[in-house]
Amino acid sequence: MIKRGFASDNNSGVHPLILEEIHAVNQGHALGYGADVYTSQAEVIFKQHFGEDTEVYFVFNGTAANVLGITGVLKPWNSVITAYTSHIEQDECGALENFAGCKVLTVDTDDGKINPEMLHKHMHGFGFEHHSQPKVVSITQSTEMGTVYTPEEIKSLADYVHKHDMLLHMDGARIANAAVYLGLPFRNFTTDAGVDLLTFGGTKNGMMYGEAICFLRQGLAPDFKYVRKQGMHLASKMRYIAAQYIAYFRNNLWYELASHSNRMAGILYNRIKDIEGIIITQPVQSNGVFIIMPPEVAERIQKKYFFYTWNEKKNEYRLMTTWDTTEEDINLFSELLRSEMESYIKRL
Amino acid sequence: MIKRGFASDNNSGVHPLILEEIHAVNQGHALGYGADVYTSQAEVIFKQHFGEDTEVYFVFNGTAANVLGITGVLKPWNSVITAYTSHIEQDECGALENFAGCKVLTVDTDDGKINPEMLHKHMHGFGFEHHSQPKVVSITQSTEMGTVYTPEEIKSLADYVHKHDMLLHMDGARIANAAVYLGLPFRNFTTDAGVDLLTFGGTKNGMMYGEAICFLRQGLAPDFKYVRKQGMHLASKMRYIAAQYIAYFRNNLWYELASHSNRMAGILYNRIKDIEGIIITQPVQSNGVFIIMPPEVAERIQKKYFFYTWNEKKNEYRLMTTWDTTEEDINLFSELLRSEMESYIKRL
Amino acid sequence: MIKRGFASDNNSGVHPLILEEIHAVNQGHALGYGADVYTSQAEVIFKQHFGEDTEVYFVFNGTAANVLGITGVLKPWNSVITAYTSHIEQDECGALENFAGCKVLTVDTDDGKINPEMLHKHMHGFGFEHHSQPKVVSITQSTEMGTVYTPEEIKSLADYVHKHDMLLHMDGARIANAAVYLGLPFRNFTTDAGVDLLTFGGTKNGMMYGEAICFLRQGLAPDFKYVRKQGMHLASKMRYIAAQYIAYFRNNLWYELASHSNRMAGILYNRIKDIEGIIITQPVQSNGVFIIMPPEVAERIQKKYFFYTWNEKKNEYRLMTTWDTTEEDINLFSELLRSEMESYIKRL
Amino acid sequence: MIKRGFASDNNSGVHPLILEEIHAVNQGHALGYGADVYTSQAEVIFKQHFGEDTEVYFVFNGTAANVLGITGVLKPWNSVITAYTSHIEQDECGALENFAGCKVLTVDTDDGKINPEMLHKHMHGFGFEHHSQPKVVSITQSTEMGTVYTPEEIKSLADYVHKHDMLLHMDGARIANAAVYLGLPFRNFTTDAGVDLLTFGGTKNGMMYGEAICFLRQGLAPDFKYVRKQGMHLASKMRYIAAQYIAYFRNNLWYELASHSNRMAGILYNRIKDIEGIIITQPVQSNGVFIIMPPEVAERIQKKYFFYTWNEKKNEYRLMTTWDTTEEDINLFSELLRSEMESYIKRL
Repeated sequence: MIKRGFASDNNSGVHPLILEEIHAVNQGHALGYGADVYTSQAEVIFKQHFGEDTEVYFVFNGTAANVLGITGVLKPWNSVITAYTSHIEQDECGALENFAGCKVLTVDTDDGKINPEMLHKHMHGFGFEHHSQPKVVSITQSTEMGTVYTPEEIKSLADYVHKHDMLLHMDGARIANAAVYLGLPFRNFTTDAGVDLLTFGGTKNGMMYGEAICFLRQGLAPDFKYVRKQGMHLASKMRYIAAQYIAYFRNNLWYELASHSNRMAGILYNRIKDIEGIIITQPVQSNGVFIIMPPEVAERIQKKYFFYTWNEKKNEYRLMTTWDTTEEDINLFSELLRSEMESYIKRL
Repeated sequence: MIKRGFASDNNSGVHPLILEEIHAVNQGHALGYGADVYTSQAEVIFKQHFGEDTEVYFVFNGTAANVLGITGVLKPWNSVITAYTSHIEQDECGALENFAGCKVLTVDTDDGKINPEMLHKHMHGFGFEHHSQPKVVSITQSTEMGTVYTPEEIKSLADYVHKHDMLLHMDGARIANAAVYLGLPFRNFTTDAGVDLLTFGGTKNGMMYGEAICFLRQGLAPDFKYVRKQGMHLASKMRYIAAQYIAYFRNNLWYELASHSNRMAGILYNRIKDIEGIIITQPVQSNGVFIIMPPEVAERIQKKYFFYTWNEKKNEYRLMTTWDTTEEDINLFSELLRSEMESYIKRL
Repeated sequence: MIKRGFASDNNSGVHPLILEEIHAVNQGHALGYGADVYTSQAEVIFKQHFGEDTEVYFVFNGTAANVLGITGVLKPWNSVITAYTSHIEQDECGALENFAGCKVLTVDTDDGKINPEMLHKHMHGFGFEHHSQPKVVSITQSTEMGTVYTPEEIKSLADYVHKHDMLLHMDGARIANAAVYLGLPFRNFTTDAGVDLLTFGGTKNGMMYGEAICFLRQGLAPDFKYVRKQGMHLASKMRYIAAQYIAYFRNNLWYELASHSNRMAGILYNRIKDIEGIIITQPVQSNGVFIIMPPEVAERIQKKYFFYTWNEKKNEYRLMTTWDTTEEDINLFSELLRSEMESYIKRL
Repeated sequence: MIKRGFASDNNSGVHPLILEEIHAVNQGHALGYGADVYTSQAEVIFKQHFGEDTEVYFVFNGTAANVLGITGVLKPWNSVITAYTSHIEQDECGALENFAGCKVLTVDTDDGKINPEMLHKHMHGFGFEHHSQPKVVSITQSTEMGTVYTPEEIKSLADYVHKHDMLLHMDGARIANAAVYLGLPFRNFTTDAGVDLLTFGGTKNGMMYGEAICFLRQGLAPDFKYVRKQGMHLASKMRYIAAQYIAYFRNNLWYELASHSNRMAGILYNRIKDIEGIIITQPVQSNGVFIIMPPEVAERIQKKYFFYTWNEKKNEYRLMTTWDTTEEDINLFSELLRSEMESYIKRL
């Protein structure tokens, strides 16, 4: 297998500055479960980025951040509306339904994005006890298809959602890539755009583990500490998560890393877009490139590079770049793809 | 309010013969929780109708029959696929997700019916732990839209489902109406057509309460008695549910009642189908008639007759006939509808 | 088997006046799900008995009344404290933990009753997120051991519980028997004694099915209609539950029936208490008599009369009288017990 | 605050060799979710220690390891029996009931240990659907009270449990300290003593995060990968957990660290046991010392050293030593305790 591939941004390692910070906090004893000074420090940083009302809770991973965060703001008889392509719907093994005890409704979307019109279908039965009561709309930024919502798009969703006395959740597993693409501070397209609840991820952008649940308005989940504990995600040695976020935000490391990933995706796109027989299915706005290629070709390449089949019915595959992708990685991969496609076409 | 309306078949009362049977078993003591002779007798009757391998468990109502029955055959990490219009999806307040802890996936359908092609969309991710594993397809017979599956349609679904190592559930809240329409014994379009698990309802067809969960193949849910008890649906005085089923099946009372309802729906359809401005949206195959009329007209009629708005976006309303609907009821209602529509059109 | 035994009060039938009322409401159509006039009428009756602030919700059975009612007033990270002998703990197959997602803590008790001192053990960890937060104390009146709390005992529990910002639940599956024993209106030892939440049962005292969840103070469970529906206990033909309660309260039928049961238990106690080798383990305050006898004797009697082994380790058995127990039933049973005991002693 | 205290072994940092290994695996890309070579390597190590049939699944923390592991081997209608003092019962906020949907029963114990006789109380109701079916007994090694089970004690529990067709779970959050105390390989008092399911912890003994669920017999939880994922504990960058275990087992680092902690506890015990007014409540067998002291003294010391009140009703406090505790730490602390006690006694 190749040293660095395009399977997922979570296949990449931990950035040296993050490891260094873990070393730095590894001195003496620290109170457990978040009562340490590093955690306090990290909480302050989140308030700086998302506003004074932000309450942040660290958990171990992204699935938990989505599921526990949403559980914190709804009741079991509520429903959550999300894109059919979302991580919550496709890749969390029903964890949200299982833990929150609620219903998840979906809307179809080509590019991973939702708009208010799409939600209309599910906006009924309010107050009718036979029907799950819609309460949360969950979007992903950047989306699972690599696309990015503009602040205006988010604002229009938030307005619609709030008008129905509902809340807007953003799954920000790749929020850094979106911020880079938009060229905007996080706050502009979250708190200020009406997002109520945010999952802020770092693992796909150079961290080791640890995601942040951010309640962006006061009073959203006053008892959340119990949800996190009962939800099995209260870390005892919390300082090591906090340290990672401290390093991640210091000197905008997050920006540097995500901006590299995005740039690499752009280069990958340029290298392969004109290969005969290849179709790029989504605009490249963050660090993913979605392509259609013949399964036969994909299988040959997968012997060297592991990557995910995205949609087996369409022969669509996902290629992800990361903070440590190099141009050489891309060159090697695109050469291989080009030559495999050429052989394939010859064989036809 | 009018004495008998068209709101729902559960607005009707209990048939006299069923009450009579309740009286008949109301003698002396009987062991609780189903260990009585009447329950045994009712179990035998179900075996006669659905086959020797049938295991039947009585619960109080239809939502529980669907939810507990399905819970009995899957694991929390499974998913259930059903029509977007189904009772499970729209009218059980997320009870299935909540109790089974599983995911529910939907397919869009115009007439309430599903076919294998529609399921295709969700047939992926098998063996991939990130993805809820599809396990049960749930159909309703007759459907929530008043339509009826043929045995062949059910068979083709069952074949498809079994090929994927999944199970077919039928929500038979109105199964009697379907049997009447098809002119077939229950068994032909359930056990013999490949249905694995059946919710058999009677409350909408002259019973007071009590639905039956029928596992149609051996070994499907060996520990189900615990599911029912933990699911809060083990009746202490079970003999009164059993008695109702004994009366319901005796001399085919169920057939007589459902065939009356269906006939009444046919008459209602004939009376109103030609009223100017009225659109009938579904074929009338059982005891429901779905019509589009101006909301203004609907509201005026609803002052006298309560009935449900089915789809507020389409101005679609549902009219249900029951075992005790009379032709006079229909005449009065259709006259009213006709005259209201005429006034409405004049006002335009 | 004998016509009427001592297995359980739920082995008895339905009182004729209750069946009569079911007939009486079986006229024409009624709106479903509790929107009918009989349900309104029954709700008024409950307010009369328990106070104007009472909000009553009918469900099908006692397990559901306990579980759903308690779920309505707590969060999953709360705990419920109850007697080790309680129905919730021993006889609901873990339904409360399963549905509410909470913890159940127990206290040991000889006579089924709890006092504040016993609760002390569990009164810790408040505000500490690692620990389930105590929220509800659940008592049974009359208890599973046939004993009865005085209003003062209940008051002292309620005071203790409220001081800790907790709530007091009463499982009143046999509340009528307690009221008869105390010679007091229900209200005196429920609402007025500080009970917050009551499960009011009738099935063990002449009804067919249908228990009432009574929130005795305003604002306790504002969204409870969703809990009941998602909890699978919203009856469609609610009028038949309402009718039973209307008859149950009319002319104090409940009192007449429970007072008969209690009297019969007293007679049974007197007939058997002096039989050589028999030990009565509990004071007889309602309709249960708990006796220790040799298993060999119990087994011989159980060939004629089914009754429950209460504590197999102590050879303790439970005998319940009901609204339809006759003195003759008691005479026959006590003769048999006496003669079996005599033979047994001779064989020693 | 003092640099190193006695609050908890999870207040200590990460051992340098473990951090070093994290660095070592931080090279290039690795497949996510445990499909990497380091995870395979760690799995092999577990098989070496616990036997070839061992199946190991890594999760983030100890609560999850207990809850998910147990969930994997039971059904919601089962019950788990554990000590009243256990972490599962006292310190997981009801996570087990919540996630598994099952009941947890407790037995009282003075020293944190359980024996078969204590279990007897709960061994009833088998096959009776009203009663939660006992399925798992969970013990902690070393216990929350610092005591250690002998292999014979475990064997006798396992035999008892298996005789009832149940399983034995061991919470090994501090299993290394027990192994050191016993002077035995892990296998002797786990797999070979009849333990079925083990939570193997390292975070309290020098690791950063990551616990291991070990199924010690084949076929115990064939679908467990779904439980872990739906339970929100499938780590994406699994290699960093695996690396820690690789270092933890290499050259018996675990032994060195735990044996240091245990030795420090012994020294602490010796330093304070004769201080006038101090009572040691438990034998010191691992790394905890439990003492009774006047709350007034405790509060004064807690200004310098955070540590937990164990039992507020008994004025009992817990002192934990760790892999990095030094003799100097102990000297400083015991001097302070001695002088505070002397002043206290003078003030009396």
